[in-house]
Amino acid sequence: MEYMKEAIKQAKKAEAIDEVPIGAVIVKDSKIIARGYNRRETKHNALLHAEIIAIDKACRKLGGWRLPGCEIYVTLEPCPMCMGAIISARIEKLYFGAYDEKSGAAGSVCDLSCALPHKVETTGGVMKEDCTKLLSDFFKKLRAQKSGFGKRGEKNEDK
Amino acid sequence: MEYMKEAIKQAKKAEAIDEVPIGAVIVKDSKIIARGYNRRETKHNALLHAEIIAIDKACRKLGGWRLPGCEIYVTLEPCPMCMGAIISARIEKLYFGAYDEKSGAAGSVCDLSCALPHKVETTGGVMKEDCTKLLSDFFKKLRAQKSGFGKRGEKNEDK
Repeated sequence: MEYMKEAIKQAKKAEAIDEVPIGAVIVKDSKIIARGYNRRETKHNALLHAEIIAIDKACRKLGGWRLPGCEIYVTLEPCPMCMGAIISARIEKLYFGAYDEKSGAAGSVCDLSCALPHKVETTGGVMKEDCTKLLSDFFKKLRAQKSGFGKRGEKNEDK
Repeated sequence: MEYMKEAIKQAKKAEAIDEVPIGAVIVKDSKIIARGYNRRETKHNALLHAEIIAIDKACRKLGGWRLPGCEIYVTLEPCPMCMGAIISARIEKLYFGAYDEKSGAAGSVCDLSCALPHKVETTGGVMKEDCTKLLSDFFKKLRAQKSGFGKRGEKNEDK
């Protein structure tokens, strides 16, 4: 719970800069070693999902491409790129909050953790209500803005 | 052929620094706009596959997270992370050389291009012999080194 709360805190940082609110933290030996939040729009870069940013930081911190003994907590079920990165970095456990029926690659659309030699022990639905609400409130607000003030481009829901 | 040849040139740059020889280029309007080669070991970072490096550069160059009208040429079938990144960046076409029976995500182990709303038009086996030979020669040399000189760690084949 503690780590998912921190991931939610990260997601709120994304929300504060008008990004889809998704946050991630990486934990090793009961300590948070890396944090990340979605910056795809702000940085104009398809790679900058919360998980990728956190994995990049964790690799730099631990000084290797493998992240043994690490767990990742993400507010939303990872997309294929992020699930692939979790596997690529040999992260051992994944905990995610909200399910992503559109592009979740930990079971919702496909289950990458089954397809490859490295298995990631996955637990979905951690603090699911909080994580789901964070996203639904964001998109609700976005739709209201679109119909009213039109502050953001219409492609922002295209996560 | 011309673009795959450039991807092979990139792969050779990886080989020159003792990385698994994998290279990628991104093409838009018949021009190469980004290049990348595998640097996972050298940079100690799970994310630094050839495709990710090229996508990162292309996003910076075009100034957006979407890469419309772009094609990517890779010497090896992308892993799930890279295939996910190709989808995430909305790259339109993928051409790859060698097939990866162990972790290829464009058909060999799984086919991510089918699972998600964005479809990537994929052509495998482009200059397949050259791309496959590049890898098999590398691993042959590595095995000889291991049994003879033991210059590299035994986990390097773990692409």
